[in-house]
Amino acid sequence: MVTYAAPLREIRFVLNEVLKADQLSALPGYEEATPDLFDAVLEEAAKLCVNELLPLNLSGDKEGCHYENGVVRTPAGFKEAYTKFIEGGWTSLSCDPDFGGQGMPHLLEFVVQELICSSNISFGMYPGLSHGAYNSLAAHGSDELKQTYLAKIVDGTWSGTMCLTEPHCGTDLGLMRTKAEPRGDGSYSITGTKIFISAGEHDLTENILHLVLAKLPDAPPGIKGISLFLVPKFLPKADGTPGMRNGVMCGSLEHKMGIKANATAVMNFDNAQGWLIGEAHKGMRCMFTMMNAARLGVGMQGLGISETAYQTAVAYAKDRRQMRSLDPKKQDKSAAADPIIVHPDVRRMLMTIRANTEAGRALAYWVGMLLDLSHKHPDPEKRQEADDLVALLTPIVKSYLTDHGFNAANLAVQVHGGHGYIHEYGVEQLVRDARITQIYEGTNGIQALDLVGRKMPQNMGRLMRRFFHPVSAYLETQMENPAMLEFIGPLAKAFGKLQMATATIAQKGFTKPEEAGAAASDYLKLFSLVALGYMWAQMVDVAMKNLDGDEKAFYEAKIVTARFFMQKLLPEHASLFVNIMAGGKVLMELPAEAF
Amino acid sequence: MVTYAAPLREIRFVLNEVLKADQLSALPGYEEATPDLFDAVLEEAAKLCVNELLPLNLSGDKEGCHYENGVVRTPAGFKEAYTKFIEGGWTSLSCDPDFGGQGMPHLLEFVVQELICSSNISFGMYPGLSHGAYNSLAAHGSDELKQTYLAKIVDGTWSGTMCLTEPHCGTDLGLMRTKAEPRGDGSYSITGTKIFISAGEHDLTENILHLVLAKLPDAPPGIKGISLFLVPKFLPKADGTPGMRNGVMCGSLEHKMGIKANATAVMNFDNAQGWLIGEAHKGMRCMFTMMNAARLGVGMQGLGISETAYQTAVAYAKDRRQMRSLDPKKQDKSAAADPIIVHPDVRRMLMTIRANTEAGRALAYWVGMLLDLSHKHPDPEKRQEADDLVALLTPIVKSYLTDHGFNAANLAVQVHGGHGYIHEYGVEQLVRDARITQIYEGTNGIQALDLVGRKMPQNMGRLMRRFFHPVSAYLETQMENPAMLEFIGPLAKAFGKLQMATATIAQKGFTKPEEAGAAASDYLKLFSLVALGYMWAQMVDVAMKNLDGDEKAFYEAKIVTARFFMQKLLPEHASLFVNIMAGGKVLMELPAEAF
Repeated sequence: MVTYAAPLREIRFVLNEVLKADQLSALPGYEEATPDLFDAVLEEAAKLCVNELLPLNLSGDKEGCHYENGVVRTPAGFKEAYTKFIEGGWTSLSCDPDFGGQGMPHLLEFVVQELICSSNISFGMYPGLSHGAYNSLAAHGSDELKQTYLAKIVDGTWSGTMCLTEPHCGTDLGLMRTKAEPRGDGSYSITGTKIFISAGEHDLTENILHLVLAKLPDAPPGIKGISLFLVPKFLPKADGTPGMRNGVMCGSLEHKMGIKANATAVMNFDNAQGWLIGEAHKGMRCMFTMMNAARLGVGMQGLGISETAYQTAVAYAKDRRQMRSLDPKKQDKSAAADPIIVHPDVRRMLMTIRANTEAGRALAYWVGMLLDLSHKHPDPEKRQEADDLVALLTPIVKSYLTDHGFNAANLAVQVHGGHGYIHEYGVEQLVRDARITQIYEGTNGIQALDLVGRKMPQNMGRLMRRFFHPVSAYLETQMENPAMLEFIGPLAKAFGKLQMATATIAQKGFTKPEEAGAAASDYLKLFSLVALGYMWAQMVDVAMKNLDGDEKAFYEAKIVTARFFMQKLLPEHASLFVNIMAGGKVLMELPAEAF
Repeated sequence: MVTYAAPLREIRFVLNEVLKADQLSALPGYEEATPDLFDAVLEEAAKLCVNELLPLNLSGDKEGCHYENGVVRTPAGFKEAYTKFIEGGWTSLSCDPDFGGQGMPHLLEFVVQELICSSNISFGMYPGLSHGAYNSLAAHGSDELKQTYLAKIVDGTWSGTMCLTEPHCGTDLGLMRTKAEPRGDGSYSITGTKIFISAGEHDLTENILHLVLAKLPDAPPGIKGISLFLVPKFLPKADGTPGMRNGVMCGSLEHKMGIKANATAVMNFDNAQGWLIGEAHKGMRCMFTMMNAARLGVGMQGLGISETAYQTAVAYAKDRRQMRSLDPKKQDKSAAADPIIVHPDVRRMLMTIRANTEAGRALAYWVGMLLDLSHKHPDPEKRQEADDLVALLTPIVKSYLTDHGFNAANLAVQVHGGHGYIHEYGVEQLVRDARITQIYEGTNGIQALDLVGRKMPQNMGRLMRRFFHPVSAYLETQMENPAMLEFIGPLAKAFGKLQMATATIAQKGFTKPEEAGAAASDYLKLFSLVALGYMWAQMVDVAMKNLDGDEKAFYEAKIVTARFFMQKLLPEHASLFVNIMAGGKVLMELPAEAF
């Protein structure tokens, strides 16, 4: 069975000891965001996740969503859980107090998202999508739209969606066919079909607000002619309550590999009334407000699943007895076999999940804190710096943490042997649920192209320097610390390769974009390994200073896990570097018809 | 939708041009096994697979097997397809003519298995398990048992199972509890519960023969006290037809991640009548006859799935249009976007599947041919040599090809983007079906331990030398060929690392078995990369000699794919080597309670 308890000690370690997140409470508007408040909120979030959401995960997967004549019913228990969720104020955590929000930092929202995704990713997507709609509306909507809709999203009684994909266009939104015609009253008629709409239709909220990309009649061709519209399922009455049904219907639900408790809808818009968000033809900009947050949210899904995979695999490995330890001294003679955690290959799998999850958490939370700094820091240069780092690290968090989430789930299955393949154990569900995170909100291949094609050249490499300079400085300082050498040495080596790969790709890509495209996925992985190594170095540094205290075992485990990362995971950088340097010619050599 | 045509040209390339499988027809008993006969058989197999088995794959997954009161019904169409299967003589292909078999080489059986597994792995498991039972019974059964049962398995009217696993023991069969008590008439009463029994109960055959591991009352403890029994579902009457129901019942079916059309049964034996196969307490030896063949069969499942994943991903990548080629010269101005096969990152995925699949096929067929040589070669030293190589390469074929099958299926999903996650496209099913192949018949971790713990030290390293010596000799010869240098150079480098890793593990493992255990998985992967590289070198060699003929494009594609393998896949050896050399200490350092 799936084993999960919120890893609050781990979370506090990253927040308080590594990132020193108490600095947020010095920012204007975040005065209340102290470590004590974080603790109190997370204790409550942990209860909600473990007691309400986790028990619905397997049953929700088994039952799935039900579709009949345009009406969608979520699995048993979801509506009750959602009611508790909004009663607890979880939809409003980081929202603007002007619209009923609690005004908490994004960082706290990130941590809560991790807990939710560890417990029930299908459930988490319903409020998650709403939060994306909130972000976009709050940033780009007119005052009238904000007044009409925001408070309802904040209190969770209404929910939101992102309607981008159409049958013939996913990544390439420029091909879009959905049309918007002005009605003459300031509103628009939206007509078209959108697919893969997560939480597109369901019974959790009294209204659903679709954020829909469409083309106006005078739209320029391609991606520069797309506008964003708000299309409510029910048109609000003058008193703000849901009124007439709008011309948008759910045509069907997809049968999917996983996240079965989340309704993935085909949405048909037939002269549906909608309102423009932001400027005409500038919809992609508004959508990216939503999309960037969503990409980080998907990274948190990967992280959340990897934590559950870890805890579940560890519980099984301590309980299941098969074969004897290869070291006679470790054999438990009181039983006929030893717990499989004695076997080196089982430990290899557990340590792999652990080392990536812990450093992934540190990286993701760091980005969460940077997001807050980018919004609230009084110094505009500091805001820009934080914003640059968030932009740079978003594709890393999205791709690496979701690839890791999927791998972690698969390793947990492998630790379980045949039992991992059986539905009732709940581990194979983690694999199926995790698989989508590598695809949606831009496939991981697209993230890699975003990194090399957009983020790398941006402002003459300014985003890259935001990361490279502090890492260089850090390595230089730590080189003088003999105790840190076993960690700093490998990291410095990998970092050197990353710098060389960066220079090579930047140079080649300048004249031959295909070369950058060919290197993208390997480069993203190389960058990720260095970023995680950088996190591990900082965590070890903290741990070493605390070895004399009450929690010696906790900090010692940090050091061993960091060592594992440096010895067993970071070396992959060498192969990635060779692959990158080999160039892209061999990828493009075969004519398409030879495939 | 899943796209698959039997890759007959690819198969002929490996059989006739690389392996020169016509040498089999020189062996006594295989006189008829000429390339022409192979061709004719494979053409027929291709028709059967594509027309009968492939169309049932998705529907079988959706419908699954039905269980009611001990009775199991396979999905719609399976019984009809099975009838055609046995009418076509496909169960008898490589079986002994004395019992109605066609006496064809194992190699041909391997190829047919690949085609079946590309089409419908759930279906293939029914005759696949029977074939395992055939092997064990043919090798170890008494004449009476053989006379009673073998012809029925050969003609496919009766089927077989392997009953090993119990709820508390999978890998560790020494913990087994199922008991066998002598009845005094030469037969035994078998009592116990077996789980995860593939094809344990179904409606395809009129009788099912369970090969069951159990302990006799006087059994020594552990693995040395296990015996193998034949327990038919129906006791044969004197005329050989099924008679009274035996005391074996299917208690339930598992709900699994994949292979849903194959019935995975809990089997309850309650004083069921059984007959000893082979000697008392020597059941593991008989089981290994079955198990070794089964492990290779599982490798073929991985290979089969990877071929279907490749063809399906390629078809989609040629058809789906999104975005523009990064190279303006390659843009198709007649359409709004280019087929995604123009994108380097998509090609990276396609080429990765292709390069592993083609070399994996060559490796697997080589082992198939070695199996025939080990049985039929007139020279006992040649037989031993072939047998040694089969033993050495079995864990490689099982692990590497199943890991690759799973990765290939996942890459195919990734190429499809969101559509890959939808059931109706059939690609996510490949992922779910492939996942079990990394687990059953000994997890891939167990295969790695088999390689380093058993095969490596066996006969003072004789098995290793059977591979190392010819590779060394081959490299030496080819070094002098300048055209081959770009392939031989990287291979020689990787081979050097493999030799060093082997020496290190052998030395460390001698005093500290945990060190060998810690290195096992990385070592198996390193070995596999070298083995695949060796296959690629041989394939390139053939291709280079045929560039002037009619099929220039075919042979050129071989050379490009080999180049991709050497530049982009083989470099992983460097990281694996570093990991191995780092040793196992870091894996064992944390106390179990710190996890």
